[in-house]
Amino acid sequence: MYIGRIVAVGMTLEKKVVAMYRVSSRSFPNREARINGETVSIMPQKGFEDDLSKNPYIAYNCLRIAGTCAVACNGSHTDPISEKIASGMSVRDAMSLSLLAMDYEKDNYCTPRIAAAVDRTNNRAYLGTIKKDGLIVREFELKPGIAYYVATYEKDIPCAHNSDNEFKAEDAYAGCTYILRGGVFAEFEKPVTAAAAIASDKGFELAVSLA
Amino acid sequence: MYIGRIVAVGMTLEKKVVAMYRVSSRSFPNREARINGETVSIMPQKGFEDDLSKNPYIAYNCLRIAGTCAVACNGSHTDPISEKIASGMSVRDAMSLSLLAMDYEKDNYCTPRIAAAVDRTNNRAYLGTIKKDGLIVREFELKPGIAYYVATYEKDIPCAHNSDNEFKAEDAYAGCTYILRGGVFAEFEKPVTAAAAIASDKGFELAVSLA
Amino acid sequence: MYIGRIVAVGMTLEKKVVAMYRVSSRSFPNREARINGETVSIMPQKGFEDDLSKNPYIAYNCLRIAGTCAVACNGSHTDPISEKIASGMSVRDAMSLSLLAMDYEKDNYCTPRIAAAVDRTNNRAYLGTIKKDGLIVREFELKPGIAYYVATYEKDIPCAHNSDNEFKAEDAYAGCTYILRGGVFAEFEKPVTAAAAIASDKGFELAVSLA
Amino acid sequence: MYIGRIVAVGMTLEKKVVAMYRVSSRSFPNREARINGETVSIMPQKGFEDDLSKNPYIAYNCLRIAGTCAVACNGSHTDPISEKIASGMSVRDAMSLSLLAMDYEKDNYCTPRIAAAVDRTNNRAYLGTIKKDGLIVREFELKPGIAYYVATYEKDIPCAHNSDNEFKAEDAYAGCTYILRGGVFAEFEKPVTAAAAIASDKGFELAVSLA
Repeated sequence: MYIGRIVAVGMTLEKKVVAMYRVSSRSFPNREARINGETVSIMPQKGFEDDLSKNPYIAYNCLRIAGTCAVACNGSHTDPISEKIASGMSVRDAMSLSLLAMDYEKDNYCTPRIAAAVDRTNNRAYLGTIKKDGLIVREFELKPGIAYYVATYEKDIPCAHNSDNEFKAEDAYAGCTYILRGGVFAEFEKPVTAAAAIASDKGFELAVSLA
Repeated sequence: MYIGRIVAVGMTLEKKVVAMYRVSSRSFPNREARINGETVSIMPQKGFEDDLSKNPYIAYNCLRIAGTCAVACNGSHTDPISEKIASGMSVRDAMSLSLLAMDYEKDNYCTPRIAAAVDRTNNRAYLGTIKKDGLIVREFELKPGIAYYVATYEKDIPCAHNSDNEFKAEDAYAGCTYILRGGVFAEFEKPVTAAAAIASDKGFELAVSLA
Repeated sequence: MYIGRIVAVGMTLEKKVVAMYRVSSRSFPNREARINGETVSIMPQKGFEDDLSKNPYIAYNCLRIAGTCAVACNGSHTDPISEKIASGMSVRDAMSLSLLAMDYEKDNYCTPRIAAAVDRTNNRAYLGTIKKDGLIVREFELKPGIAYYVATYEKDIPCAHNSDNEFKAEDAYAGCTYILRGGVFAEFEKPVTAAAAIASDKGFELAVSLA
Repeated sequence: MYIGRIVAVGMTLEKKVVAMYRVSSRSFPNREARINGETVSIMPQKGFEDDLSKNPYIAYNCLRIAGTCAVACNGSHTDPISEKIASGMSVRDAMSLSLLAMDYEKDNYCTPRIAAAVDRTNNRAYLGTIKKDGLIVREFELKPGIAYYVATYEKDIPCAHNSDNEFKAEDAYAGCTYILRGGVFAEFEKPVTAAAAIASDKGFELAVSLA
């Protein structure tokens, strides 16, 4: 099944919270995730920079640390969500306000904007989406070995059904490989690249991986 | 089962859209719905006006006509949602913005604010809620004989599961009696009063009923 | 000059921040401010409760303590602004979001919703208004003896010009009398009642006064 | 005086409304405006594409037609403002919501996001800004020969004082040259490029110009 971009939140067996992002793409597979400090960006691979002129939505920050939270998204709303959280706004409100304002992508698929966030101090997790026909932001209670996800197509509603009950990741890189081809994610087609943030004692560890 | 206040959207067998609101209440049963022009208000019954000083949330406009839409809610957010729709804002955005700003009620139950709307020109229907742990606004496709609802407790997520598949109402008053004791609503306890708006050729017909 | 309801922020000569609210009214003069814990409400005076049925906007919480802030407003937006601040949202955003959603009053005068807030920990002050033709929320730098205000009519833009440069108030009650008939406020007609919050060592002191 | 980026609204002597945008820049002067259908984008000039990796804010859509409106901005908020207007949201609310969510730029200058819009059917004009210390969106009444503007620095408050009383522009290109070096704009330093939209019988005419 092709479900497009995916964001996920999970808790490892060691009770560390994880935020993950995966690019799956039919049209622009030549992209990669790059870490720059506390931010991960999706960019065209070297030699494919011209893709930027074909679609304005394909390059963006997909993962950012914001205070005690890690935020993962499929577009430029990563920035306002992260910055509002850093300013003190609740995750629920930061996600709702940014999604409401920036709205779904005005492409041929009316691609939703999706978002995930985890707070390492209270283990709270959030998934959100804005679609042509709805805005949904929900908090999820994480347990060890459980991950919840929402995607741009098909699996596009944040709800308890869209989960993986055998989630594990010993570090951030393992989070990337899990969302690229582990558990329930193995059945989702056309993986391109992934990024993940895993809670550590003093913040978050980041990693990226190509499919 | 006690699920508190209920808002619902439905389509009659004659393909007329309906918005409905029902008060179910453990604490303040002595209330009634009153029609005033294009607005219906929930008010204490004569002799119980003092209840207003015990809880600021018990009197409010619960149903309003706004352009080609009818809006039904469990609190004062009926007004901004209706007024934003009348100003041209989409129902999805009007509901999302008002719920996001006014938030759940800060009472002992963290009672959600819930909202319903139908547009008589395109038969679109919407349900929304803001809870402590989420904001959900969704559009529903109506078919004859189907109603969708969301309540303040238990049945508190707008989704396809919270539906009634034998909905019928020949007029607005029948809409009131249906949400008070018809179909799936018969099993929900402590009905107090109800209001309904049903699409007509040139607008909406309103009605109210005590339980 | 009649400028309607007034909200103000100021700093006393002793460098205490103050938030003030004054009702001036042509139509509903028989109202008073009542303190209830950390909230002050505007209510009809005994014997004038029926005024509530004539205009839904005349009774509301006009002053609330929210975390380290005091918030003063001319309507029910006091509640969402206070609650969003208490949830961690910045004062600028809490005021902007609530005013944007609840909008100006749909009465014959298109009366703006106005708001004031002071933070006792950093002495920051804010004034805001939503009018038919604009939304303005601004932070003001307070100095001892200076107050800034915004009103529903005429003086309806938060800006440096709408100020009083001889502001003084030894306590909250003096804040009430100042906004009712002190300094620049003496020239504004039809005072009815006032409420004020003044920073103290461990919070805010509240007071109310009739004109 | 260096006031950074500038947005402006004006009415020609022939009573046509105009929206204008000018890049003034100390750090990234090698940019140009390019028309693509109903959108104008600011992009690095050929040979300076690498500037994109130095600052994510320097390339964006700066001007878009949205229904009966033209919208001009100094950043990517052009898109949500335009899209919300096209969805039916009022200009005041579209501008307020988008600015509130996307907030000022998190660069060394806390550069405000600024916005301008004109509606060719009712000649209404709007200027807006979100700064670290405020959110201001105001409607302006246009008269022939008058333009209002707001900039990122110094002249950063939308108000009647920031105006040009000898504004004229026979076409969109003349609008570009006016904001680059005409009237009051002549005294503002470091012009780089400009874009303008002028109302015509059936829509808006667009033009761009280098300084």
